[in-house]
Amino acid sequence: MTKVLILMGSDSDWTVMKKAADTLTDFGISFEAHVSSAHRTPEKTMMLVHNFTGECIIVGAGAAAHLGGVVAAHTVRPVIAVPLNATALNGLDALLATVQMPSGIPVATMAIDGAKNAALFALSILAVSDEQLRSRLEKYRDAMTKEIDAKDQNLQKSLRGA
Amino acid sequence: MTKVLILMGSDSDWTVMKKAADTLTDFGISFEAHVSSAHRTPEKTMMLVHNFTGECIIVGAGAAAHLGGVVAAHTVRPVIAVPLNATALNGLDALLATVQMPSGIPVATMAIDGAKNAALFALSILAVSDEQLRSRLEKYRDAMTKEIDAKDQNLQKSLRGA
Amino acid sequence: MTKVLILMGSDSDWTVMKKAADTLTDFGISFEAHVSSAHRTPEKTMMLVHNFTGECIIVGAGAAAHLGGVVAAHTVRPVIAVPLNATALNGLDALLATVQMPSGIPVATMAIDGAKNAALFALSILAVSDEQLRSRLEKYRDAMTKEIDAKDQNLQKSLRGA
Amino acid sequence: MTKVLILMGSDSDWTVMKKAADTLTDFGISFEAHVSSAHRTPEKTMMLVHNFTGECIIVGAGAAAHLGGVVAAHTVRPVIAVPLNATALNGLDALLATVQMPSGIPVATMAIDGAKNAALFALSILAVSDEQLRSRLEKYRDAMTKEIDAKDQNLQKSLRGA
Amino acid sequence: MTKVLILMGSDSDWTVMKKAADTLTDFGISFEAHVSSAHRTPEKTMMLVHNFTGECIIVGAGAAAHLGGVVAAHTVRPVIAVPLNATALNGLDALLATVQMPSGIPVATMAIDGAKNAALFALSILAVSDEQLRSRLEKYRDAMTKEIDAKDQNLQKSLRGA
Amino acid sequence: MTKVLILMGSDSDWTVMKKAADTLTDFGISFEAHVSSAHRTPEKTMMLVHNFTGECIIVGAGAAAHLGGVVAAHTVRPVIAVPLNATALNGLDALLATVQMPSGIPVATMAIDGAKNAALFALSILAVSDEQLRSRLEKYRDAMTKEIDAKDQNLQKSLRGA
Amino acid sequence: MTKVLILMGSDSDWTVMKKAADTLTDFGISFEAHVSSAHRTPEKTMMLVHNFTGECIIVGAGAAAHLGGVVAAHTVRPVIAVPLNATALNGLDALLATVQMPSGIPVATMAIDGAKNAALFALSILAVSDEQLRSRLEKYRDAMTKEIDAKDQNLQKSLRGA
Amino acid sequence: MTKVLILMGSDSDWTVMKKAADTLTDFGISFEAHVSSAHRTPEKTMMLVHNFTGECIIVGAGAAAHLGGVVAAHTVRPVIAVPLNATALNGLDALLATVQMPSGIPVATMAIDGAKNAALFALSILAVSDEQLRSRLEKYRDAMTKEIDAKDQNLQKSLRGA
Repeated sequence: MTKVLILMGSDSDWTVMKKAADTLTDFGISFEAHVSSAHRTPEKTMMLVHNFTGECIIVGAGAAAHLGGVVAAHTVRPVIAVPLNATALNGLDALLATVQMPSGIPVATMAIDGAKNAALFALSILAVSDEQLRSRLEKYRDAMTKEIDAKDQNLQKSLRGA
Repeated sequence: MTKVLILMGSDSDWTVMKKAADTLTDFGISFEAHVSSAHRTPEKTMMLVHNFTGECIIVGAGAAAHLGGVVAAHTVRPVIAVPLNATALNGLDALLATVQMPSGIPVATMAIDGAKNAALFALSILAVSDEQLRSRLEKYRDAMTKEIDAKDQNLQKSLRGA
Repeated sequence: MTKVLILMGSDSDWTVMKKAADTLTDFGISFEAHVSSAHRTPEKTMMLVHNFTGECIIVGAGAAAHLGGVVAAHTVRPVIAVPLNATALNGLDALLATVQMPSGIPVATMAIDGAKNAALFALSILAVSDEQLRSRLEKYRDAMTKEIDAKDQNLQKSLRGA
Repeated sequence: MTKVLILMGSDSDWTVMKKAADTLTDFGISFEAHVSSAHRTPEKTMMLVHNFTGECIIVGAGAAAHLGGVVAAHTVRPVIAVPLNATALNGLDALLATVQMPSGIPVATMAIDGAKNAALFALSILAVSDEQLRSRLEKYRDAMTKEIDAKDQNLQKSLRGA
Repeated sequence: MTKVLILMGSDSDWTVMKKAADTLTDFGISFEAHVSSAHRTPEKTMMLVHNFTGECIIVGAGAAAHLGGVVAAHTVRPVIAVPLNATALNGLDALLATVQMPSGIPVATMAIDGAKNAALFALSILAVSDEQLRSRLEKYRDAMTKEIDAKDQNLQKSLRGA
Repeated sequence: MTKVLILMGSDSDWTVMKKAADTLTDFGISFEAHVSSAHRTPEKTMMLVHNFTGECIIVGAGAAAHLGGVVAAHTVRPVIAVPLNATALNGLDALLATVQMPSGIPVATMAIDGAKNAALFALSILAVSDEQLRSRLEKYRDAMTKEIDAKDQNLQKSLRGA
Repeated sequence: MTKVLILMGSDSDWTVMKKAADTLTDFGISFEAHVSSAHRTPEKTMMLVHNFTGECIIVGAGAAAHLGGVVAAHTVRPVIAVPLNATALNGLDALLATVQMPSGIPVATMAIDGAKNAALFALSILAVSDEQLRSRLEKYRDAMTKEIDAKDQNLQKSLRGA
Repeated sequence: MTKVLILMGSDSDWTVMKKAADTLTDFGISFEAHVSSAHRTPEKTMMLVHNFTGECIIVGAGAAAHLGGVVAAHTVRPVIAVPLNATALNGLDALLATVQMPSGIPVATMAIDGAKNAALFALSILAVSDEQLRSRLEKYRDAMTKEIDAKDQNLQKSLRGA
């Protein structure tokens, strides 16, 4: 069964949102991804949300980024939104349009273009009832630690060499 | 027949949006006004928009103000939106969430809390096919001119008296 | 008879504003377009506005974008303004200078560089008294829906192929 | 067992964060709440996070709001953060300091002062593996719909009376 | 002969703009002040500018503050503008709408609500060809120095007393 | 005698500030231009200002742009400042650091990178006591009008040709 | 000998800057405090800086807050600056005018109105060569920890009581 | 003994932070530099801070830049932070996340990407108890003065040649 639904308002958003898909794939989590706009295909968006029986939804949208709010209006499942840098305002418009949700309908907002973190946050939700996944997330953190340590070692070498 | 539909996301928005209603009333234009949220009552919002057979729609919403975009997604009638000053960000969130609509679905945005101008703009739309209304709008402008002249006269008096 | 007047403050604005003209052309709506600045050719701007007997006016301007307000000061016809990204401030200056109009003189503001939406909004105004145009706008929406569906199909293929 | 941990950087944050606690209480979800600062009591913060064996963590912080990030650095459990309006910058500082997390360590950000939504989002996470809670969240939504309907009825009455 | 023309878009701007008038009065410089809006009384504004044969013009306007630009479009005399804090955006809208003038039509912009500095800058312009006025401006500066010295003395007393 | 002093904080500012020099040259106005920083060469800056016996001073500075304020602190002559786009913040830092001068010490602020307008404003100051220069400024405006008319003619041709 | 010099641009800044003085007093560190403006009393400011033979300088200024930069231009001693919330822009102007110093002349910037932290940072500088002061700063931190623990205890009581 | 510790959240920050290292090297001050993240390697960060027995710490971080605050939470030594331009928001996020520290835990903030100034400020701290270093800093300032003088001479030549 599909655990995560990824929605994005335009196919040009895929460049960024693919990072969410790739991270889910790395963890072996099944997902569906669809291009569906809050404004241009509202019925399709609603239908995709109503038909979804998985765990949580990741949404990516830029400009007046309403997709997170529109999706959250139609489900009580966790909605994680990625404001995209898609206009002259550098994503500030998408960030405020996504995060400033009124009381009653929460949307969990990630950093501008933070698609990878959206997937990691979805994984942390799935891990609430999946001990094994939680321990894999902890290993992923350990790998990050080692990666940074390796980068630090490289810096030490270049400093000694200088 | 109702010419204008006024929608607002919360009944607390009425304090501002009432100015739109009052201006329409001053011009004798019939309207309906409803509290209906993009996020909390999406079905009701859609139903109100689908059932509306009048000329144009005025929308008021604050915070992540999606109401303008959500309404415009369900109609090709002109949608005029008033971003409301309803959060700590002084309406900048509502302004960007309202005005930065993606290509294909326009929302005509007024100033923050600019409900009166929303009504005047709706009137200018109705006046496109109503010569009489246009000439009343021109008289309204003349009255504004006179009002400012009167205020200027008062200033001249106070300057001479000083 | 010309239905729509397009004004822009500088000929360099044409790159963006041409999208409004193209969209009107696609719908067979007659228009005039002129370079005329609020500050550098105020008399010409006024004359163009006073002589215009069509339905509505589309304006594009960047920086301290006064053209929308200056045009609206001389007509009660609907004025639709496109704030242009023309300075270091990424269009935020043009957006605020356009949208924050004082009470009494409305200017319908589109997204930064949102020239196509300006034309679509003008069309929605014309459609208020033109059933046929309204049904063409609805077909245009249907075409957008199909276009996004097609893009979604492409995404599905690439996901299956991956 | 305690399901949710609420942390806030200062006891003055309780005025806002209490709304999260109240909402959890309304749903009968057990929680702990602590005053513990990212900067002034970093060891206590770490200890509280390390000792917590529940489902998810809600954090409230203003100014250079590091608490969300600092907590997320020490757990793979879902961290939900509420940027608080606590300085002259109206919460914009807390919002950016909370939401712009680097890749690898997600923090789910709510609206400025959006403590109630933080609780509702935590509930949506718990509901992923709790059908009953999900259906209670759906009932909560229905109640919101009815509340807005009632407010709309009041507006209709006052309009008819006017 | 009137040396300085003061224009403001609304009589409510007088509270701030009066400081410009008072400073001119303190220096014995003749001025006229008028309420005249760029948008609501464009013809009156133009007439006032065209009829003015004095030295320079001071303008105060809030919101989409076009008055400075509109005045500068009709004169080559120096135009000094005061962006006013008159909306939810705290004068940032008026500042950007005033200062970001396109090449060719300069407007000398003061701080938000900086009406006194507008008068002092007008005086510095008049002083270019008036040695006596320049020396009075220098004495004014000396007086400021002494005022701050006196305040510093008070601080020293309170510190010693503490 | 030198009429105008141009100061800039760094030689890299010359690319922009040269437009001010070129415009003064076009009008046959004598000027001096110097690289002198408010922070790195404060004594030189002061000396240049104290020794200057001409009409007005044009200043260009980016980042924490203090040069306008520092120069104005040492003269009662008109100081015109150009905030430069020199950092990641796109000139917003320079704009606010230049324009928000405290009461008593005015700095006439131009648009970000608006060096040409700084020269035109200096010319308008010189023209206060120079009828001939004023009439040349008026001719310059007429030339701008014709230039825009010519651009408009080009647009008309391309529209007819399309 | 005086260790720390506190400068502020206006006596109205004392309300905030007094917190810096009080913190220095609590630690028994001698200081001088003066009202002296970068713009209105530049010579006095320079003289105070040149005559100062102590360890470091704390500066408070609002609006176009140049005092930090102007002081740093005249000394190589550490300059710590507090941007003050003194205008309609809520201190954002003072923050950017203070922090965005060009390369070569550093100013250590604190939070808006962060006068107490300015004193604590000055103490940390003095503690570099004063073991005893460092250990007092560590005790001060311990006291903060205890204070927060006490507040947390109060919260626990009120939660149990609720 | 190492006098200065340089920490940065990612190895990609080294391009900017190297300028701090180079400046310290120019002055013959010993330093260590490490890649260590507030979020991805919190324990390493703490360990590096606890083990450091030198004079002061320079930190560089972008996005939700918590590194300055996290380091300052674990030491009473002076912490100097450089907000880095690392996201779509041009460093404004890092600036606010760094500078708006709550009362009790100061972080001395430099300009966005101002790594060289961070080193110069660290040197000014070391110079508090090192007369020789102070006089070297004064010579460094003199060299800057001469460099700007030379650039000014070049400008004079090019102006005369033009």
